[in-house]
Amino acid sequence: MVEFESDAMRRFPVPEYDELPSDLRERIDEETERAGFTPNVFAGFAYKPSHFRAFFDYHDALVEDTALDREEVEMIIVAVSGVNHCYYCNVAHGALARIYAEDPTLADQLVANYRTADVSDERLVMLDVAVKLTERPTEVSEADFEHLREAGYSEEAIWDIGAVTAFFNLSNRMAMFADMRPNDEFHTLGREPRE
Amino acid sequence: MVEFESDAMRRFPVPEYDELPSDLRERIDEETERAGFTPNVFAGFAYKPSHFRAFFDYHDALVEDTALDREEVEMIIVAVSGVNHCYYCNVAHGALARIYAEDPTLADQLVANYRTADVSDERLVMLDVAVKLTERPTEVSEADFEHLREAGYSEEAIWDIGAVTAFFNLSNRMAMFADMRPNDEFHTLGREPRE
Amino acid sequence: MVEFESDAMRRFPVPEYDELPSDLRERIDEETERAGFTPNVFAGFAYKPSHFRAFFDYHDALVEDTALDREEVEMIIVAVSGVNHCYYCNVAHGALARIYAEDPTLADQLVANYRTADVSDERLVMLDVAVKLTERPTEVSEADFEHLREAGYSEEAIWDIGAVTAFFNLSNRMAMFADMRPNDEFHTLGREPRE
Amino acid sequence: MVEFESDAMRRFPVPEYDELPSDLRERIDEETERAGFTPNVFAGFAYKPSHFRAFFDYHDALVEDTALDREEVEMIIVAVSGVNHCYYCNVAHGALARIYAEDPTLADQLVANYRTADVSDERLVMLDVAVKLTERPTEVSEADFEHLREAGYSEEAIWDIGAVTAFFNLSNRMAMFADMRPNDEFHTLGREPRE
Amino acid sequence: MVEFESDAMRRFPVPEYDELPSDLRERIDEETERAGFTPNVFAGFAYKPSHFRAFFDYHDALVEDTALDREEVEMIIVAVSGVNHCYYCNVAHGALARIYAEDPTLADQLVANYRTADVSDERLVMLDVAVKLTERPTEVSEADFEHLREAGYSEEAIWDIGAVTAFFNLSNRMAMFADMRPNDEFHTLGREPRE
Amino acid sequence: MVEFESDAMRRFPVPEYDELPSDLRERIDEETERAGFTPNVFAGFAYKPSHFRAFFDYHDALVEDTALDREEVEMIIVAVSGVNHCYYCNVAHGALARIYAEDPTLADQLVANYRTADVSDERLVMLDVAVKLTERPTEVSEADFEHLREAGYSEEAIWDIGAVTAFFNLSNRMAMFADMRPNDEFHTLGREPRE
Repeated sequence: MVEFESDAMRRFPVPEYDELPSDLRERIDEETERAGFTPNVFAGFAYKPSHFRAFFDYHDALVEDTALDREEVEMIIVAVSGVNHCYYCNVAHGALARIYAEDPTLADQLVANYRTADVSDERLVMLDVAVKLTERPTEVSEADFEHLREAGYSEEAIWDIGAVTAFFNLSNRMAMFADMRPNDEFHTLGREPRE
Repeated sequence: MVEFESDAMRRFPVPEYDELPSDLRERIDEETERAGFTPNVFAGFAYKPSHFRAFFDYHDALVEDTALDREEVEMIIVAVSGVNHCYYCNVAHGALARIYAEDPTLADQLVANYRTADVSDERLVMLDVAVKLTERPTEVSEADFEHLREAGYSEEAIWDIGAVTAFFNLSNRMAMFADMRPNDEFHTLGREPRE
Repeated sequence: MVEFESDAMRRFPVPEYDELPSDLRERIDEETERAGFTPNVFAGFAYKPSHFRAFFDYHDALVEDTALDREEVEMIIVAVSGVNHCYYCNVAHGALARIYAEDPTLADQLVANYRTADVSDERLVMLDVAVKLTERPTEVSEADFEHLREAGYSEEAIWDIGAVTAFFNLSNRMAMFADMRPNDEFHTLGREPRE
Repeated sequence: MVEFESDAMRRFPVPEYDELPSDLRERIDEETERAGFTPNVFAGFAYKPSHFRAFFDYHDALVEDTALDREEVEMIIVAVSGVNHCYYCNVAHGALARIYAEDPTLADQLVANYRTADVSDERLVMLDVAVKLTERPTEVSEADFEHLREAGYSEEAIWDIGAVTAFFNLSNRMAMFADMRPNDEFHTLGREPRE
Repeated sequence: MVEFESDAMRRFPVPEYDELPSDLRERIDEETERAGFTPNVFAGFAYKPSHFRAFFDYHDALVEDTALDREEVEMIIVAVSGVNHCYYCNVAHGALARIYAEDPTLADQLVANYRTADVSDERLVMLDVAVKLTERPTEVSEADFEHLREAGYSEEAIWDIGAVTAFFNLSNRMAMFADMRPNDEFHTLGREPRE
Repeated sequence: MVEFESDAMRRFPVPEYDELPSDLRERIDEETERAGFTPNVFAGFAYKPSHFRAFFDYHDALVEDTALDREEVEMIIVAVSGVNHCYYCNVAHGALARIYAEDPTLADQLVANYRTADVSDERLVMLDVAVKLTERPTEVSEADFEHLREAGYSEEAIWDIGAVTAFFNLSNRMAMFADMRPNDEFHTLGREPRE
């Protein structure tokens, strides 16, 4: 039985799970089963059901219909959240980055400075463009696209790099605006050393 | 019969309308009828149908289920796009801001510097927060929420201010990444003087 | 018979045309005849006649004794005003850029992000340097001069690029400081589609 | 007999004094007599006589027809040049600030950080606004005008504060663009200790 | 028996422990005993023994002769390292912050955005000043000192806040310059939940 | 007999020389003899003897055990202090830069914009890296190290460039935090023209 953490978000009231429309409860149950706990972003967006649906549908499209590896998606998210200084996304997606990349230190590298991350040269180009689109979008140019193509990214993968980056510029701002707080679980998930 | 402008977007190929899934064509037809032309953002997002659906569903939720006036929504969009320097959104939503606010010069004010805009003091507070959340999201604080409440915005309206701002931080970046180009019509719509 | 708009400038009192020194009235009459209306910047600078003379003499030198095309001058002005976020200059010189370049959408491109403007590669180099001199003047280097020469600009043209840029860093700040407001006419001038 | 320093400016050829129009030579002679040497900015602007005339006429209007003390004018110039990082103006106007304020250390304070300068609270308000108009002109607001009025500045003096600031945003950029070099004399003028 | 990690630092060769002067080995042994492993910063600074001595003596003075609580010192360090984006210090001092404050989530809050940290109002004022001194040192003013005094900090404690902040602006830059890498242990230390 | 200037530092009380521990007085006497006056930074750090020792030991290690020329050390310091806008260090180390480089105008160039300084191409590369490490430390990369090696700097010299830069990021912040004021002597030292 799902119960939202009362501290899931600090600037808006956290709704009651029981009073949510059934489609929201269904989506929440599914995530809770998968993760073993209910990530606080679900409690946060449940404040406004129409936005909950739109947000998670977009999110799901980005991770389900993509030319990128899931670990690439999470790398982009953490690098973007790091430069935007989003506490919720650093921690929640930091956990996912550790799990999908099977690398217990990767997330702390990406949060601090993606240039220090132990990733391939190809993925470094990907992160260069994601961070540029985040911080200085006016300067994204044809040369960046050329670098991505040279690194082996397909046209669709390049679209997806832009799309994940753009979406987490939304996501970071919603989490920061509402002051969403990551569940304690996220801080430690995926930190066990590689064998 | 809809035909996409070949120059709708420069960094990805513009798809053929005829080859799109029927739900996309339906949404595009509806918009084309309403506007009298097909805004290029529809041609752009049609590159990837799953993202098209997610993007416009989110957009529609923001303008249909909101505690803000439609002109407030468009004011936020143009102020945010102005500081992000997004050509497509400045021009396309500039037109909508002129139309909904029935003010032929408002959009040029908002694009340049929202502080020069002829809007009420209450709406200036709204724009202050939207631009802060765009440019310096780490600094959004309880004091900003207090200012919004004092200006008369309800709790839900405050959520919506954050949500529109966040969404157009996505939107601006997708338009800039793909180099979407506004239709010629948007440059002149709503510029006829008030009577 | 000239009459100044009472809303020409908001932070200083707009003077009476009739009470101005005759040389100012002459310059204003001349402009009014040419344009069909009196641009508000004339009303603004008339606050202090000695500055009016200095400002318009400098302006006139820049457009009359120049190795640049007039449309290049206006392109620089709008690109510079765009990054400085000057409402008056974006709109008033946006109109001039549209007229001289015979391009109804150019100004909106330059205001948003000059990198999206439909201009030749040579003029893009010119705008690169103008915007760099505006935003990061310490970084202007010999390499920028080399790029300008390779793009075909003569030594005198390069001086003029610097001079127009510098002057509109003055102009933008005076307009923003005094809160000058563009005449309604400027918003629509030159927007009719090319044939 | 005037002779220009060959190193007066590095990015454009320094003209021959003898070949200049007589009105330029007259203005240069006058300055040379007053200062005891020819400031390099005269050699620099002589590259283009029409700009020379416009530049010095504007400059002269600012220092001759003003509601500010001359030392206030020079304080603004050095504070503005300090944040713009202009070598020529820091040094040449630093000398003038020392001389007019009769203070051998003032200029080094203003170049580094005007907030450390030994000036009255009133003049600190003046410098606050000058530096804000230089660095963040979009944010200049009615509150800044209120602060200036409370500090005792008249309406015309406030206009002049804006005008001097704006002009040196031009001046700094011309000097930096052309790489003008201050005469050796400026580095030491006015450094003798107060009695 | 101490052995340095070969990956302790990437831009300079990691020295051999055995070949270090005895006073360095002594300091390293002491730390190794205390921590249970040798923090990589010791391996890094051992590259140049005279700098090793100076660095750790300064560090030790800051934590041994201080009017601040040790947890306050570590809070400042992590907040400063977060805005400077220093991977090594985020992680190594993040561990210390968790341990001294007995709070498993504090460090991730401070790294992301100190304003989200669960700290007292008094400590928030302390962090405000530390981050301001890091990012915008010209703007530190008497008002900041007043806020610190009102928050109950003694004159010496205020000096120490400045001193820790200043030292970690050195420390962050040395770690980033040399590309020092935190030991794996630091990533997980102090993450066990409070009882 | 040493006496501290009462205006050596404005935000903390200047201690009495006579009441200082003897090792501090010894270090101060030595400097006073060498310089002919007591630099105010000694009066400032004497506020807290443990920090005085740590600060000057670190400083002395940097200038005594170094692969750089002393004039290179002072060039870095003034370039770094210039971008950090530190009044004390601009002036005090500006004097040292003039003296060690035997160049009366060098310091004013470095304070304004190191790119205008009359230094060799090799030293310009050194200053490029020092300023980048100061302003944008996340962006320092292997390419910067390559440029330094190509300019002839040894591995140890490169470490020293990083170390001096890092230390003066501490130093600048302590001087700015405490509002230390340079002695009058520093403003004029080394300004006599070269023969």
